[in-house]
Formats: sequence, C-alpha cells, structure tokens
Amino acid sequence: MTDSPSSAPTAALVVIGNELLSGKIVDENTPYLMAQLRECGVRLCRVVTIEDDLDVIAEEVRHASEKYSWVFTSGGLGPTHDDVTVEAVGRAFGVGLVRHPDLVETLRKFKGDAAAGLDRLTWIPDGGDVFWGHNGTAHWPTPYINNVYIFPGVPKFFRARFTELRPTLMSSPFFAAAVYCSPHESELVSRISASDAAFPEVDVGSYPQFGDEDHRVRVTFDSRDRAAVEAAMAHFVAQLSAEWIVRITPV
Amino acid sequence: MTDSPSSAPTAALVVIGNELLSGKIVDENTPYLMAQLRECGVRLCRVVTIEDDLDVIAEEVRHASEKYSWVFTSGGLGPTHDDVTVEAVGRAFGVGLVRHPDLVETLRKFKGDAAAGLDRLTWIPDGGDVFWGHNGTAHWPTPYINNVYIFPGVPKFFRARFTELRPTLMSSPFFAAAVYCSPHESELVSRISASDAAFPEVDVGSYPQFGDEDHRVRVTFDSRDRAAVEAAMAHFVAQLSAEWIVRITPV
Repeated sequence: MTDSPSSAPTAALVVIGNELLSGKIVDENTPYLMAQLRECGVRLCRVVTIEDDLDVIAEEVRHASEKYSWVFTSGGLGPTHDDVTVEAVGRAFGVGLVRHPDLVETLRKFKGDAAAGLDRLTWIPDGGDVFWGHNGTAHWPTPYINNVYIFPGVPKFFRARFTELRPTLMSSPFFAAAVYCSPHESELVSRISASDAAFPEVDVGSYPQFGDEDHRVRVTFDSRDRAAVEAAMAHFVAQLSAEWIVRITPV
Repeated sequence: MTDSPSSAPTAALVVIGNELLSGKIVDENTPYLMAQLRECGVRLCRVVTIEDDLDVIAEEVRHASEKYSWVFTSGGLGPTHDDVTVEAVGRAFGVGLVRHPDLVETLRKFKGDAAAGLDRLTWIPDGGDVFWGHNGTAHWPTPYINNVYIFPGVPKFFRARFTELRPTLMSSPFFAAAVYCSPHESELVSRISASDAAFPEVDVGSYPQFGDEDHRVRVTFDSRDRAAVEAAMAHFVAQLSAEWIVRITPV
C-alpha cells in the first residue's frame, strides 16, 4: 500500500522521552495527532518514539525534515536536565541556540522572579522563530525552524498549541470506504490485489478479524479523491459473490 | 537521562502498517511490549511506526539491528499484497527469501487445500530460522534472522508468540522509586540535576503535573541496581525541605 496520492502533504512525528518507552507515562499525543492530521488531509508517514538523547533526536529530526512536508516533535521541552529537544533540533540543522524575545517576555509574565532558573525555556534554534497562531488566544508560542515544530509533551499544552497550527495545515481531507466480507482472507487475496493494482491513487487495506462473528475481513479504500474511492470499491465488489458481502460502509 | 546502565540489554520495536498511522486501528502491541520488556529487564530504546514500504522497513530494521540487542517487528506478516515485512527484513541483511519446511507443514496443517494461495506465509529470510519456544504449546513459530524477530500484527497472535520468547529475554528487572513533591518544578531543577549527576547508573526523571491537587512534580529513580535507586532517592530527599515531600514510593 505504498500508492497513496503523492499530492498529499506528509508528516512525521518524533516523540521524545524515556518515560514513554518504559511505559511509565502513556503517550496521548500520538493518537490525538493521528486523528487531527487525518482531518486536515495530511498523511502521517512515520511516528518514532526515542530516548532523551541529543544525537538520536537530532538524527531523527534531520532525516524527517528532509523527507516529509511537516515534522512535529513532542516532549523534552521543559526546564530540566533531560529537556534537550530544542538543542537537538538546532543540531539537526547545524545551528546553535538563541533567546527569543517573545519567550523571554512570556516567561517573565507567567513566572515573574522565578524565571531566573528557567532560562532554557526561552531558547530556540538560531534561524528559527516562534509561531503564535491566528486566533490571538495562545498563552505560549511554538518554537519552529524550517518545517519542524517543537511541541511540549504535556497533552493539554500539546493540544492547545497544535490547535493554533491546525488552520495552516488544513488542505483537503481523506475519504474512506469499507467492505465487510464473510470469507477467509485467503479467498480474497487475489481480488484485493487486482483492485489495488487497478487504482494506484487509492490506498487499499485488508484487515482480517479472528473470533469475530460478524465478518472475517474488512477491506478498506482510502484516498483524497472521492470518486476514485467509489470506483475502486465498485471494482472490488464486482469481483465478489453477493453472499460474501456482509456490509458496505460507503464514502 | 541518557545514563541508564550500559549493561542492560536493549531493544527496538518496528511497527508496520498504514492502518496504524491513520488511526484506523489502535496499536495494542506497543504498550504490551513495553510492559513485558520492563519486566524482563530489557531496555526499550526505540519504537518506530512506519508505512508498508519495503525500503523504509528494510532501512529501519538494518539500523535497529546494528544498534540494539533485540529487534522486534509487528505487522505486515499476512498473505496480502501489503504484507512485505519478511521480504524487507531479508533486504535489510542483503538476502532473499526461502521456504521454511516448518512453515510449509504448519500452513498445510491449518489450511489444507486452501494453503495454495498463501505461499507468502511460508517464506523466511535466507539464513534465518523459525523459533518455536520451549513450551511445546506454540501453534505457529516466529521467523527470525540474527537478532530480528518477526511478529504478526494481530494482538492475540503477537502476544502468543512473544510469550514463547519471553524466557529467553528474561535477565534482571528494573527497580523504581518516586518522590512526589509540592513545589513547582522550577524550585527543584538544580536539586534534580545534582542527584542525576551524582548517580550516573540511575535514570532520574521529573514529571510535572498541571492541575493536580495532590502534587506538582513526581521525581522518579530507575535502575537495575536496587541499592543505587535507594541511594539516589536518599540523596535527592536530603536536599528537600520536609514540607515539600507529599509522599514517597520506595523500591
């Protein structure tokens, strides 16, 4: 299924934190972003969860920035020793860090005299900027450089800042349809392959269920082209015996 | 927090499937494996979720195989056109595919005459083998090559096959302790850094809570060395005013 439309903007998510890999904290940002990007018509191609390691983060961000339209990082953005994401994003682009006046001012506003020990929160990669959004409702802006946006790991803040960026990402949504089938997947393999080959602009998926009384295989059709989804599904259905079709979920 | 004990075996998980990235299917295998590996004393360093793309999977597997003790793949192991994981793992090591007699036999046993269209299920990377486990209870073995084990994406089967491998992975577990603190994280930053620096074999984490009435920061201590966890926590507690400590969760 590598044949999704090449016209869709793409994205990668880099999730940072030992606490997520050990399972100590559940990652709520990835499922949230998956749903959001799908609504925006942005194809999420890669999610990687890595440790708080400067070089590993830098390498991931560099790779993702070259390959995808948008890159989002989650986590490692606080004031403590393990918060190395901003520095790592700088390293990905071979630049150091500078203080951003908006962050200095925002930190002073929220923290007053306690701001002294939190200097790390005011830095961005040199050559980057901060993104406030269009609503005028943001409490804190998002540092970015090139196509890389640096989000905090705390879900409440991740959501608030992503919401500001959402209108910028919105292009055209994906359309989806599904056929629920009663035979074993082995009966359907060649038919699925035929429809997949005939409609290169549609992403065709096959999801067998085990122990499900309702159906044995769900075959899905996804594309940003609504007509193509409908045509691919019709092509597949035409290959089936009528009694094999449990249910169709149209576009 | 890059100072976890170097003696712990490490692992990477490569999760494969467009349906997971689009959020159509929820990934149950990653949280399961996180908990299992923690119990086994294996440090999970990397989880990457990628599309059903031969070259992308091959590159991830090659990179992970070089860098970590164990690599597990999840998904892309069925009979359909998008099930390219076995081929991709072969490509990671520059080898083609061969039929494995155990898989041919097992497929025939389960599918009988229907086995004809499912040939893909019998192939493994050339130079690899299949792993049955020690219990004699496995229904289907796990293909592997070098340190890469190829698991199915269906959670029920993923769990069954991982359970067979578990005794092989078991080394010594991690020990954990935590101090729940009432001050803002900004008050604690330098103290956390001091304890982190003094105990390089302990992974020290700081998790601020927002809107939590109970505590403002949870400071965690993790290591495979129980005595080191206790010593690092004592070092940190000695730097705090007594009224800052909401609660301690000892090892």
